Amino acid sequence: MAVVGASADTSKWGGDVSARLVRSETDRPVYLVNRNGGEMHGRAAYTSLSELPETPELVILAMPATAFEATLDEALALGSKAFVALFAGLGETGPEGAARERLAAARLRAAGALMIGPNCMGLTDHSTGLQAVAYLDVPQGAIGLVSQSGAMGEEFVARARAWGCGFSRYVTLGNQADVGIAEVLQGFVDHEATQVVALYAEGLREGRGLAEAAARVVAAGRPVVLLAPGRSAAGARAARSHTGSLASSEAVLDAVCRATGVLRVDTPQELFEATVALLGAPRPRGRRVAVLTEGGGHGGIAADALVAAGLRVPAFGAALLGRLREALPGSAGANPLDFALGTTDPGAYARGLAVVAAADEVDAVFAVGQLGYWAARFPEFGDLVAAEVEGAEGMVTSARAAGKPLVVSTVYPAAAPAVRLRAAGVPVYREIASAVGALGVLIRAAEATPSGVPRLPSPAAALTGAPDYWQAREALAAAGLAVVEGRRVTGAGEALAAARELGYPVALKALGHLHKSDAGAVALGLDDDDALLAALADFEARLAPPACVVERMAALDEGIELIVGCRRDPLFGPVALVGSGGVYAELLRDTRTALAPLGVGEAQSLLAELRAAPLLSGARGRPALDIAAAAVAAAAVSRFAAAHPEVEEVEVNPLLVLPSGALALDARIVLGAADDGARRPEVEER
Amino acid sequence: MAVVGASADTSKWGGDVSARLVRSETDRPVYLVNRNGGEMHGRAAYTSLSELPETPELVILAMPATAFEATLDEALALGSKAFVALFAGLGETGPEGAARERLAAARLRAAGALMIGPNCMGLTDHSTGLQAVAYLDVPQGAIGLVSQSGAMGEEFVARARAWGCGFSRYVTLGNQADVGIAEVLQGFVDHEATQVVALYAEGLREGRGLAEAAARVVAAGRPVVLLAPGRSAAGARAARSHTGSLASSEAVLDAVCRATGVLRVDTPQELFEATVALLGAPRPRGRRVAVLTEGGGHGGIAADALVAAGLRVPAFGAALLGRLREALPGSAGANPLDFALGTTDPGAYARGLAVVAAADEVDAVFAVGQLGYWAARFPEFGDLVAAEVEGAEGMVTSARAAGKPLVVSTVYPAAAPAVRLRAAGVPVYREIASAVGALGVLIRAAEATPSGVPRLPSPAAALTGAPDYWQAREALAAAGLAVVEGRRVTGAGEALAAARELGYPVALKALGHLHKSDAGAVALGLDDDDALLAALADFEARLAPPACVVERMAALDEGIELIVGCRRDPLFGPVALVGSGGVYAELLRDTRTALAPLGVGEAQSLLAELRAAPLLSGARGRPALDIAAAAVAAAAVSRFAAAHPEVEEVEVNPLLVLPSGALALDARIVLGAADDGARRPEVEER
Repeated sequence: MAVVGASADTSKWGGDVSARLVRSETDRPVYLVNRNGGEMHGRAAYTSLSELPETPELVILAMPATAFEATLDEALALGSKAFVALFAGLGETGPEGAARERLAAARLRAAGALMIGPNCMGLTDHSTGLQAVAYLDVPQGAIGLVSQSGAMGEEFVARARAWGCGFSRYVTLGNQADVGIAEVLQGFVDHEATQVVALYAEGLREGRGLAEAAARVVAAGRPVVLLAPGRSAAGARAARSHTGSLASSEAVLDAVCRATGVLRVDTPQELFEATVALLGAPRPRGRRVAVLTEGGGHGGIAADALVAAGLRVPAFGAALLGRLREALPGSAGANPLDFALGTTDPGAYARGLAVVAAADEVDAVFAVGQLGYWAARFPEFGDLVAAEVEGAEGMVTSARAAGKPLVVSTVYPAAAPAVRLRAAGVPVYREIASAVGALGVLIRAAEATPSGVPRLPSPAAALTGAPDYWQAREALAAAGLAVVEGRRVTGAGEALAAARELGYPVALKALGHLHKSDAGAVALGLDDDDALLAALADFEARLAPPACVVERMAALDEGIELIVGCRRDPLFGPVALVGSGGVYAELLRDTRTALAPLGVGEAQSLLAELRAAPLLSGARGRPALDIAAAAVAAAAVSRFAAAHPEVEEVEVNPLLVLPSGALALDARIVLGAADDGARRPEVEER
Repeated sequence: MAVVGASADTSKWGGDVSARLVRSETDRPVYLVNRNGGEMHGRAAYTSLSELPETPELVILAMPATAFEATLDEALALGSKAFVALFAGLGETGPEGAARERLAAARLRAAGALMIGPNCMGLTDHSTGLQAVAYLDVPQGAIGLVSQSGAMGEEFVARARAWGCGFSRYVTLGNQADVGIAEVLQGFVDHEATQVVALYAEGLREGRGLAEAAARVVAAGRPVVLLAPGRSAAGARAARSHTGSLASSEAVLDAVCRATGVLRVDTPQELFEATVALLGAPRPRGRRVAVLTEGGGHGGIAADALVAAGLRVPAFGAALLGRLREALPGSAGANPLDFALGTTDPGAYARGLAVVAAADEVDAVFAVGQLGYWAARFPEFGDLVAAEVEGAEGMVTSARAAGKPLVVSTVYPAAAPAVRLRAAGVPVYREIASAVGALGVLIRAAEATPSGVPRLPSPAAALTGAPDYWQAREALAAAGLAVVEGRRVTGAGEALAAARELGYPVALKALGHLHKSDAGAVALGLDDDDALLAALADFEARLAPPACVVERMAALDEGIELIVGCRRDPLFGPVALVGSGGVYAELLRDTRTALAPLGVGEAQSLLAELRAAPLLSGARGRPALDIAAAAVAAAAVSRFAAAHPEVEEVEVNPLLVLPSGALALDARIVLGAADDGARRPEVEER
């Protein structure tokens, strides 16, 4: 290994990283390079790479950006194949720096070499003994961390140290001039030392390639937890200003998580807390949580938080309660179970857990309160402290025997019993919210059934010119969408003939206006010839449409209105959407998304997750509606959009779901750029 | 002061509390009483209260519950007027213990004495130098804490110690045999040393009396933060099993908070973090938050979290951005503002804050990231550490000068700069979520406009017997509710006459069924005589109703359906509700509650907060609806219920709000017990 830009001054990156490398030097020699030479960290610096006694396998670039290309050329000429670029000042500063990065990446690929960075804080791989991180020693463990930001990586390490866990592989990526997230993720697929992968990303510019790599890691039994800011406009703006990354919208990230099984979180705290939960605990078989507490009100607060998070805290059955009262005389409550002992019996948690963990009616256990009270508050009472630690051992034994997750929150997370539990893989948090979040993520991991990243079909013959409403109807009907019956008409005669054929009441729509409702180009519920002719005359006077469409009026009050559509994301390509329609749709914010194209089964799953799903399945005395037909419609729209890279957006609004069938009552197709935008898989083997 | 049940063994309550009192003894003598006498904590114990050289003003009861009544009688006979009962084993154990508590309370009141507890952990009042808490020294400060649970109090103190703040008055109440929450709250109204009150309560059994006391504390400029478990059924079950308290439903607590300005939180963490935010920071004038970060992605995450919490992170205007770029050359982003300096410039936060805090377009500032990096990570770089601390001073100065709240989250909350900020009243949190929660609570405190606890009217003449639908219509119409026009009819002749008078279409409803829809006792949209007669015949055949009601059909598609009603809570009496109606109502979970009776203005505020409010005010091209008429209806229903303590529930569903007017289309009144359940104010002066 060589450090270019090594320094004696450890307040500088080159100084700190070279001091660390020299300190941890094993049989892999560390060469320090500084163009001025000099003595540093107990050894002489070389003035260039060419002077070294051998070709370095790995070159750490800590010199200024100005010397980047010259250094890279020199190293590639010598035959070096791996680079870690710590220096900053290229892509993050603007287009010129980005262009230099692209040129360097091309040279690296041509030489069969790879580079992490620049503008990163290095990487550690404990499986190969590689430690090349500035300002940090990375403890060993089973977490794989991939962080675009060095500062986030550093923060994660601080949390891991406090918790008592560590990393199998730790990679900060910075500007990703060469190696990107997808390639690093791919490396975890068969990385035995890694149990869970934490990913911090300000942009997912590799699109579907990244999603496919993530899906493979998850499928290999290694959960992936993702923190990706940019849900809000301000958050997206920040990501752009920080690294120039394009943040994906929330809807698109939801679609990616659905396809891959990636678990998304919102803060660095959640990223860490979810990761450590997944590290140790088994997956629950259901959502029923038993809450144990020694009293003080923590049980009720925990129960409220669990229920608010979608978990269940059902009352214990009589038989289980009987066993509990025997094990814990004087205990109160039927879940939460309150030992009603205060902290006076340090063995109570273990005795309670032994009973509830073994019960069929319990999927997971949450021990909440003051575990470790004596160790933290009154270490002078040695017997009580010893009993607490022994109790912790007993808790571990019971949870393991039951194969169910045990999650703990205690006011005393640094006390000996808590340390013992964490060492055994039981997550012990300071806060109730953290423990509830951990149980939530365990449930999400257990319930996730990734649908997979769908293949994009070969492009169909492109649409030429923006389709009007009639063309949109025709194109989508040809793609398999059931559209309300209608006729394209010009003039009163054709209109009347169409209406009589279809049967009154009818709707009349003027062509040539994308937002027909806004333009007053739609007349509904026309009951007879007079009404139709009046509407037609009005349209012709106001809008002078090239033609109109006469449609049979659907029985709106017999069904429920949905929206189905598909929109093209610049990173992930076509993303399908289903949602509630009608006047309450915006209030409900009731939409679900998935990567397109959708299969019918996947579409049906999306529909079943809508908040309006009870209306579809016939709640409140209404008839059950044809969910299968709605799914067919959503799938057809998504297939169409996926096969038409020139389509920016397709929207069917409303799709009227009836007791039998689902009819598109309106549709529009908007064209965009010719590129479909999806980044196709491009993770190379090398 | 005397401790009865004093002990030499500090693992016992009587031992710990007496050791603490002896240690902190000032000019107020501490007498130890143990029925066996003996030497403890350097002094001889008396064997009974009667042996003491003077009558103790305050008696701390730490003996077993078996000796309670005898000890109390002895002390009351001596003339003692204040008791703190630490012992357990009465009310929390069942009805027998509760009965003993009631008897004791009566004796205390007869003697003009008062008692805290039993089953509590004591109290501290730094204004009077009183410290009578077991297992704990309570640091001095400006927080007033009232906790039903001693364990929660203890946890709060641990958090306060770590933060560096303390308590003016600290009261754990336990079983509240005598002194209850309302009385303690009342004591904070003019307690100069208290800036904010934190309240942990598992039940609010004093009902409106408690609400009135809380409202007075808030009105006196002392925010009250409330943690009350029991939102979920399991949480309520836990509260009941822990202290026998009856948890109030979420809807009722929302109503109480609206009336009083009390700020509700969900966990002990939030209780503490909200309290310390309110302790130091000024109230923001609006929701616009400026986010400052030194980079690393924290800015985007913070922005996402702020927006998710309902705060705003608007982009800075050009003039402000210009001033920022001048103060921080190379900084990026327009809010979040990223210094793009990493941690290399310890003065950047202060320079950025000086500019943004002074800007009119900013209401509050959130500094997020790694403040204190050098102090925490590399204390050997003394100049950088000093510059960080100096930066913290500058931040305090700028925030104070602007009179705007500054909230900080940093990876290094224990470092010197963070300690300095907290000492100056700037809340510095470890987690982004905590800081966002703090800003949220500051906004809630600033925006709260408590409506006050309404007075219950004198009861009107009680309804006799359960009213049928017609009687409910009549009673509510008399109370001022606009009800759809209708006639009570028996037989076909009366029905036809009514329909012709009202005009078709009409609705027909059979009397005698509370849930008319479920019983098939409603026929809507009857267009002519034949339809009406058919419906009538069907009702008579199936339901044999004593009579029916013929009503004019309302124009359902011209308005929006709401639910308005009022329900009697066992603690707080009548609670009014307004909500969205119709098929989407349950999905929207769109209800608001307030203590009844409601004024019309208050009803209008409730309606404006509904998620469906945009539909009422005319969104999506629809006409604006008559919100004022809907408010009149809600107020009338609430006045009626408040005047009828025998009424358990009134529900008008739907109330059809039209462009002009609001019509009740259905109504029901359910009677309950004769008592209206509201605990009237009973805080006595003494």
